[in-house]
Formats: sequence, C-alpha cells, structure tokens
Amino acid sequence: MTRASSEAADSAAGSGAGAGAREFLARARRLVDARLDELVPAETCEPAAVHAAIRWSLLAGGKRLRPALVLAAGETFGAREEELLSTACAFEFVHTYSLVHDDLPAMDDDELRRGRPTCHVRFGEATAILAGDALQSLAFQTVAEDSALDAGTRVRVVAELARAAGTPAGMVAGQAYDLAAEARDGVTAAELESIHRHKTGALIAAAARCGALIARATARELEAVTKYAAQLGLLFQITDDLLDVTATADALGKTPGKDARAQKATSPSLHGLAAARARARAACDEACAALDALGRPAPVLRSLARLTLERRA
Amino acid sequence: MTRASSEAADSAAGSGAGAGAREFLARARRLVDARLDELVPAETCEPAAVHAAIRWSLLAGGKRLRPALVLAAGETFGAREEELLSTACAFEFVHTYSLVHDDLPAMDDDELRRGRPTCHVRFGEATAILAGDALQSLAFQTVAEDSALDAGTRVRVVAELARAAGTPAGMVAGQAYDLAAEARDGVTAAELESIHRHKTGALIAAAARCGALIARATARELEAVTKYAAQLGLLFQITDDLLDVTATADALGKTPGKDARAQKATSPSLHGLAAARARARAACDEACAALDALGRPAPVLRSLARLTLERRA
Repeated sequence: MTRASSEAADSAAGSGAGAGAREFLARARRLVDARLDELVPAETCEPAAVHAAIRWSLLAGGKRLRPALVLAAGETFGAREEELLSTACAFEFVHTYSLVHDDLPAMDDDELRRGRPTCHVRFGEATAILAGDALQSLAFQTVAEDSALDAGTRVRVVAELARAAGTPAGMVAGQAYDLAAEARDGVTAAELESIHRHKTGALIAAAARCGALIARATARELEAVTKYAAQLGLLFQITDDLLDVTATADALGKTPGKDARAQKATSPSLHGLAAARARARAACDEACAALDALGRPAPVLRSLARLTLERRA
Repeated sequence: MTRASSEAADSAAGSGAGAGAREFLARARRLVDARLDELVPAETCEPAAVHAAIRWSLLAGGKRLRPALVLAAGETFGAREEELLSTACAFEFVHTYSLVHDDLPAMDDDELRRGRPTCHVRFGEATAILAGDALQSLAFQTVAEDSALDAGTRVRVVAELARAAGTPAGMVAGQAYDLAAEARDGVTAAELESIHRHKTGALIAAAARCGALIARATARELEAVTKYAAQLGLLFQITDDLLDVTATADALGKTPGKDARAQKATSPSLHGLAAARARARAACDEACAALDALGRPAPVLRSLARLTLERRA
C-alpha cells in the first residue's frame, strides 16, 4: 500500500468518510492533474486552438472521481502509483471528451461547466468537436504507450475503457438513451436506471476494474470491485441529480435547476427528494457491502462511497 | 503470401495497375465488409438509432482504401489475412467516424456522402456525433480484443492508430488546420501539404505501417513502407481534389465542384490542373521508388499506387 492510501486507511478506519479519504482524494487530484498536464500538448503546440480547447476543458478543476477510483482500487490490491497514473488519466480524457460533446448545442446545449463557459461557447463548435475527438484518441494512446504496464495489461485496459466508452454497453449508449428519454414523455424507474448505468455507471465501474486489473486482482476480487463500483456509479448519479435540485450555481460550477426546467427524469423528479436520498444511502451501503467479500479492509474505497454520499458539489 | 495477394502479384507483374490489383481490392473489400458487419452491433440492438447511424455511414460502400493498405502491406511481408482483418476494420472505423464528424454543420456542413444523405441529415446531429464517438471507441476495442494478434502487437497497433487519429500528429490536427485555412485568405503550398499530411496522410501511413508491423517487418522495411504510404496519401488527396474538379456527382457519390464554390485551397486551385496532375504522377513514382528499398517485389503495393493515380471516383 502506498503512502496516500495507508494514510487514508489510518484515518478512515474510525471515521467513515474522514480526513484521510479527503486527503487521499486531494493527493490523487494533484498527481492526476500534474500527469494530465504532461500528457496533453502545450497550448503553444499547433494546432493551438485544439490544444487550448482540450486544456480549457480538461484542466478546469474537475473532481477526478474516475482517476481517483483507478488509484484507490489499484492501491487496494497492491499496485504502485506509477502503474496506475496513466490509466487514471486515460479515464479522465474519456470523461472530459464526453462532457465536451454532451454540452454541444445538438446534444444537451449547456453553456456553463465547472464554473466557466463550455468548450464550444469559448472555442466554437468545430473546435469543441475536434477537442473531444482528440481526447478520446489520447486516452487510448496513453494506455498503449504506458511503459509502466506490460503489454497484456495495457490491452485489457484498452478493451475495458473502450467497451465502457462506446456502445452498446457503455457511455455513448447511455447518452443516446438519455436523449431519447428527453424526446418523449414519461420514463420508468427501470429506464432511468438503465440510462445511469450506461451513461455514467459503465465508465465508473471500468475505472475501478482497471485499477484492480493492473494490480492483478483475482477474478473474485474483480467481481466484488465491479459490484462496488456499480453501486458507486448509481450513488454518484443520484447525488448529482439531488445537487441539481438543492445546490447553488456557485457550489456546483454549473447551472442548477436545469433538469427540472428541462422536465428531465431524475431520481428526485421520479421518486421525490426523500426517496432519492434513501436510494443514495442504500447504494452507498450496497457499495460497502460488496467490499465485504474481499478478504481485506479496503478503507479508501469505503470512504470514497461515503464521501460521494455526503458531497455538496 | 495469401491467395488474394499472389493473384494480384501474378497479374500486376506485367500490367502496372492491372486486373490482379483490381481483384485484390475487390476481394479485400468483400472480406472487410463482411468483418465490419460482424463487428458492429445490429440495428435491432439498442440503442437502435446509434447502431443504424453507424451502419448507414460505415456500410455505404466506401472504397476501403485504408483496410486494403493494411492487408496489402501485411501480406507483402507475410502476415496472414486473419491477422490483418480486425486491424483493417479498425482503420475503417476511425476513417468513418472522421467522415461523420467532418460532415457536421459546424464542420464542413456536407449533405451528400457516398451517394446518400450524410449521417446527421438522415439521423440528426446528436445521433451523428454519438455514432462517430462510438466508432472511435469500437476501433480501439476491436484491436484490443483481436485474438489473432499477441498483446505486444495489439499495443503497437493501438498506439499507431491513436497517434494517427489524434493531435498533434494526426487526423484531428489536419482537420483543424483545414478549418483554419478556410477561415482566412491565401494558403501556401507548404500549408496545404501540411493539411493533407495530417488530415489524410497520417492515417493512410499508419494503415500501411500497421500491416507491416503485424507481419513483423524489419525497421528498414517499415521505413520504406512509411515513405511509400506518405506518398500514397499525398497522391490520394491530389486525385481527390482533381476529381472534385473533373468528375460528376454520379461517379463521385458526393457533390463535385464543392471545393471551388467554397474557394477551398486544393492542389488544382493552387497549382492548376496540369501541375496537379504532374504532382500526382510524381507522388505515384516516389511511392513506387520507396518500395525499391525492399528486397522483394511488392507488386500489390505498387499496383495500389497506380490504381490511385488512375482512379475515376
């Protein structure tokens, strides 16, 4: 176990989502932000507009949940930080590309993201489309060129990441389901769960799985981590929807109340605030229960679930 | 050497771009089309709109130049067809995603492609963006899951493909340069060549290189193939621009004369028709000269260059 996760373990042992977990997240974010900066061409490198757009969207202070999950899951099973960092960044590249494309006028038509104008508002639609496309390529290039991993591991990570990003099982499918749901009246709870499972759940689950894969976790450990991450993804989406109802634009860095105005189906709109909160708690408990199948404590993964439940932004 | 390339060799030996090379291309296309159909989810598979859009754009009868190059370069150095087919398809996935995104209103705003409405005209912009995104993921997934190749080879192919697709060295950079050039007056010949080298040349070169890589070509052979493919890419772009001036919509399957109306810089507009034709011939000759460095005849690669020079659509 590395320094970051053992500190988290010390602290989290007694306190649920304690200071140790927050420290782990802060450290993961520093490490990931530094590596992201290294992996992306400079703004002075041509084509400058595309690189500026990539940097605008990528380095705008995201939570880095997916990279943190790669690190947390990997360190839980004994992988070294250096083995995990490039894969962690690859997940952030894919996540950021999806935000850039989802914000486009033809998609969700969002103008504010992480407290700043969205990529296409700042750089124009063409450059935003290209920045997203390039980020996706960069994700796979980063894994394929990661000299900290053997070839077999790189191939497994590329395959996991690609399946989680694409269709029919991944993020693109989820965005398609989401757009289709918005275009018609009435979405069932099962449909909403399917949207979430594909749109955000697949990539979150793959992040945790890839961390564990890199650490050569056993099939049984991988299964437990997959269950954990599926619940964490659901939890993350429900808390996202709750924050859209309850938070301020300042705290969120994006326009709140947008779901309601768009009459978008969310956990709160479908089940009510109290029931949505109860579902979030249940998802957090199930995530932690899945970890019980591991023969080890996994305090950082537990704390990440608690922190997600308690998040305010 | 497999049946397809030895037939081509027999026939091409005497006749330049003879019937053998055309047969090779026709056979490559049949093989690739069949594999593409296997690799892409059915239209009945949800999300159906995305899969219908992918199939609309992918299976509309493209020339399959990049897949053919993977096969031709690979078979030149002794790889088996089965080792090359998935990688060949991955290149077509990336090429097709770029067509779908480049045709979008915010980019080149094209309504006709391969004789049919473009993806966004037929399925809407949001679905077209998602179809392109999914095609890119599928390209890398296909290589990563290709059981005909060992892990080390898959990793090299993923890296080559990703660099050629992205930025700063690849296709996305080329499209950015192209859009920037259209937005201002006057493009130099050197700038135009840089656009071509990135926008179409990088992926074409990578296709030939990956075929050779899969066949375990030596560094010297790889260098020769890279030089060959760079000239072939240039040749392909010049003949594309020439056809935009001289061909009919029926032959092209897209709207001709579009470059001139858009006052787009092309080889013919910058240098005149005769000089553009001379440059195409020179590129073809240089492509073939690069092959002389190989200690073997490579008749299919030679014939592909001749066929490209002589193409009418």
